[in-house]
Amino acid sequence: MPKNRDAARANLENLYRIFTVPEARDSTLGSIDQMIADDVAGFLQTHIVAIERNLEEIEADFSSSTIPEEPTYVSEYTEFVKEKLVAQSVHTAAPAFIGHMTSALPYFMLPLSRIMTALNQNLVKVETSKAFTPMERQVLAMLHHLVYRREDDFYPQWIHNSLYALGAFCSGGTIANVTALWVARNRLFASGPEFRGIAQEGLARSLKHLGCEGIAVLVSERGHYSFGKAADLLGLGRDHLVKVKTDANNRIDLNALKEECRRLQGENIRPLALVGIAGTTETGNIDPLDALADFAQELGCHFHVDAAWGGPTLFSDQHRSLLAGIERADSVTIDAHKQLYVPMGAGMVVFKDPTALSAIEHHANYILRHGSKDLGSHTLEGSRPGKSLLVHAGLSIIGRKGYELLINLGIDRAKTFAGMIQQHPDFELTSEPELNILTYRYCPQSVQQQLSQSMPEQAGQINLLLDQVCQLLQKSQREAGKTFVSRTRLRVPRYDEELTVLRVVLANPLTTDEILATVLAEQCEIVQQPEIATLLAMIVTRDK
Amino acid sequence: MPKNRDAARANLENLYRIFTVPEARDSTLGSIDQMIADDVAGFLQTHIVAIERNLEEIEADFSSSTIPEEPTYVSEYTEFVKEKLVAQSVHTAAPAFIGHMTSALPYFMLPLSRIMTALNQNLVKVETSKAFTPMERQVLAMLHHLVYRREDDFYPQWIHNSLYALGAFCSGGTIANVTALWVARNRLFASGPEFRGIAQEGLARSLKHLGCEGIAVLVSERGHYSFGKAADLLGLGRDHLVKVKTDANNRIDLNALKEECRRLQGENIRPLALVGIAGTTETGNIDPLDALADFAQELGCHFHVDAAWGGPTLFSDQHRSLLAGIERADSVTIDAHKQLYVPMGAGMVVFKDPTALSAIEHHANYILRHGSKDLGSHTLEGSRPGKSLLVHAGLSIIGRKGYELLINLGIDRAKTFAGMIQQHPDFELTSEPELNILTYRYCPQSVQQQLSQSMPEQAGQINLLLDQVCQLLQKSQREAGKTFVSRTRLRVPRYDEELTVLRVVLANPLTTDEILATVLAEQCEIVQQPEIATLLAMIVTRDK
Repeated sequence: MPKNRDAARANLENLYRIFTVPEARDSTLGSIDQMIADDVAGFLQTHIVAIERNLEEIEADFSSSTIPEEPTYVSEYTEFVKEKLVAQSVHTAAPAFIGHMTSALPYFMLPLSRIMTALNQNLVKVETSKAFTPMERQVLAMLHHLVYRREDDFYPQWIHNSLYALGAFCSGGTIANVTALWVARNRLFASGPEFRGIAQEGLARSLKHLGCEGIAVLVSERGHYSFGKAADLLGLGRDHLVKVKTDANNRIDLNALKEECRRLQGENIRPLALVGIAGTTETGNIDPLDALADFAQELGCHFHVDAAWGGPTLFSDQHRSLLAGIERADSVTIDAHKQLYVPMGAGMVVFKDPTALSAIEHHANYILRHGSKDLGSHTLEGSRPGKSLLVHAGLSIIGRKGYELLINLGIDRAKTFAGMIQQHPDFELTSEPELNILTYRYCPQSVQQQLSQSMPEQAGQINLLLDQVCQLLQKSQREAGKTFVSRTRLRVPRYDEELTVLRVVLANPLTTDEILATVLAEQCEIVQQPEIATLLAMIVTRDK
Repeated sequence: MPKNRDAARANLENLYRIFTVPEARDSTLGSIDQMIADDVAGFLQTHIVAIERNLEEIEADFSSSTIPEEPTYVSEYTEFVKEKLVAQSVHTAAPAFIGHMTSALPYFMLPLSRIMTALNQNLVKVETSKAFTPMERQVLAMLHHLVYRREDDFYPQWIHNSLYALGAFCSGGTIANVTALWVARNRLFASGPEFRGIAQEGLARSLKHLGCEGIAVLVSERGHYSFGKAADLLGLGRDHLVKVKTDANNRIDLNALKEECRRLQGENIRPLALVGIAGTTETGNIDPLDALADFAQELGCHFHVDAAWGGPTLFSDQHRSLLAGIERADSVTIDAHKQLYVPMGAGMVVFKDPTALSAIEHHANYILRHGSKDLGSHTLEGSRPGKSLLVHAGLSIIGRKGYELLINLGIDRAKTFAGMIQQHPDFELTSEPELNILTYRYCPQSVQQQLSQSMPEQAGQINLLLDQVCQLLQKSQREAGKTFVSRTRLRVPRYDEELTVLRVVLANPLTTDEILATVLAEQCEIVQQPEIATLLAMIVTRDK
């Protein structure tokens, strides 16, 4: 059948084309690039989403579960992506998108990401990454230095040492936190004369060996949800993730912590790690790290600091002291895709003791051989892209002073916004910004008065209605697609109740005070929508 | 100090520029893009590395552990990247780079990656990903369908169901394998009348509850090293990762498996999961999946298939049957950055039972609320980029038939190369290609004869010398930078010994038969280098 053979040959030629032909490459690449320029810099610049469509409607465009049999033209696919995906994505870089930990990206991140993608290095081993390996090791050393400020003669012996790693580069803060607790667990149950270590023998035998009922991780109730995952994954169980009460400023309550430790001791449960938070996800507050370091020392347990958000505060001469004590942590998580302004998918964990990561060291026959400089022998993940280039670029191009400006700017802006909220009669600040995160809610002046004169039970009823207002307001604002804040539930000391609140993160340097004023103005309009107005009326009339 | 204030304002303006100025953006972007075009498509096209430098020399360029105080010009930094990083990276896309699981990328992956980076979506939640969430759900459904071939009316109820996920998108195969075993563990110890489940109570209490000494994962000795990490991480301990012997074709030995199971039963250790491999990392062989499915059913344990490499063989009408039985697996890992030709950092795990991932479900107050469609409630990782777009693009643009061509091409080429090795007097094939991976070693005809006439002890001595030859040969070839194969250590049935062998992966469609001939020719030259020639002479003269 020569005809079929011809068809097969034609297909094969097409196949080679998609891997080679430079003309096709250039023209399509040009048009796709143009498309981004048009869409992203264009109408998405002023809107969070292009034209609001329900998720259910969007799902209809992605409803087939069958892989297409036949190939599609790139141009056709590009049209689809433009209309159905890009137009219905979220403009996370918009200056009015202040609800989550997103920002505009420095422009050089795009071409450098492209280099990274084109080179397609695999950081698991030197054979597929060469110079990227020393570069990533340098990035980890720089972050280590930012946190621990070890003397200059400390680094030369560790930075490129094939037997050790000063930290691990990860896909994000969750893997970084899991890695930290994994290392802590394996160091607590290290091998000895009659015990081959937990990595070999497992958790159950390890507990028997140590003669305790369990091991626990202590973190404040503001701790990131990744610690719950870690407690599950590592076999501790969520029962043994002790969520310690916080004080009026969303910082861990040291008395409550002591109480919990006494309780654990009584149950013969050993503290594995104490976690301090440097920038809680919901409120941006910082635990008293120095006091926690003392405490961890007393307990003889691992001290981890989750600085995924707040770590880069260390760049700021003005605000660095907020994190005093972080240099005493055994491990520290810092996310690069947050305040290092790197695109999504980059986190790190660094360890005070340069030999700590040996607790999770592993090898294979075809790579990661003993003595090789392959970074994969000390990471949870296997194959990984060269994202550390983007951190290296940020640190080099923006520099310490540039990041300092960004940090100072965000904190100043948060304080400005907090002032605007406090001066506005119809809003209530529910957490003061310590860094660049704050929470508040819509609560008209009259209702604030009502609440101040109410008995707890009455106040509770009013707050339930305000929770609904808050939820509807946030949803309506998101759907309108002009500005965006997020929401969460938080125990607010003033009422000693868990309330639904609006949450704002100010990390985008393009966000202006005018935009912040617009956010509040839009909210004042939204609450006049019938559904919300009815709820508010119910509050006002209920006491009459 | 007005001067300082001016300086501060100037700095601030620079800061805004890096997030906005389109002129600067265009010109620099242009020049950086040009640089990639020049370097990657240029001299790197014919070489694996540009000019070989020792890793120690390269390290000198990345030796400072201090973050620069002052900003650097983008142009200056770009020069640095060009000279010190790109020129010393590895050209993983080169057609003569056939040692690891790398390939040229379809050209459309680059502009689409750029879109992904520019949009900077975060797939953890709908609020920062919108249409990307249904798109990722569709990709998971497509992969689910590829593996499980469920009827058409199965998918509509699950694909966009907010309570469930058909699989998890991951940064790579390691996280995918860990996720599969995590789910298996949590399902074995599910909550019941008097037990709140392992996620809550932890592993030690769970074992007590079930009344067993431990839980074990069984996989052949060819299993990927990520299973060792998983056994450590999940608290099982590496003792309880049972590495079952393989047969003459690097497939799990079913009798040895039965033997191991009997041993575990005697020790009151419960099999948690049986792992079948569809394309071993080192030899590309496929375990008898149907038989393993029967076996897992008998044991009543989870059946996981690690098809990180070989999964896309399912695209091929001709070769699909090699994976018969995969549709009976409880979970299957497939890497997208391998044979789906997506850039580094994309893996997936799909589950037969659409409710399986509920075993690791988690929530938070600010995102992942109950009933939301946020994908992050069923993943190990937290914040994640929209890499699933690239899988969606590959499946759409290349199509099932395009991937079939790629798969067939690779397997054909591996068979061709195996033939070339077998016909060459001085090489010895050490594993036959079942997919597109094979191993071999340099072993001159005279030595092959010597070995066939030797007693085991003598043969062992000769093989030790050949191991050294193999290691030096691979290293020398890598350093020459023209062609590249990898090496590993493998028990070779012919000698019943673990030998050092060369490993070849043929997944780059641009690799030609001529290139394969060049690889062997270069190796024949390299072995004439004094150090290797001396070793070979020692072998020949030792019997005289």
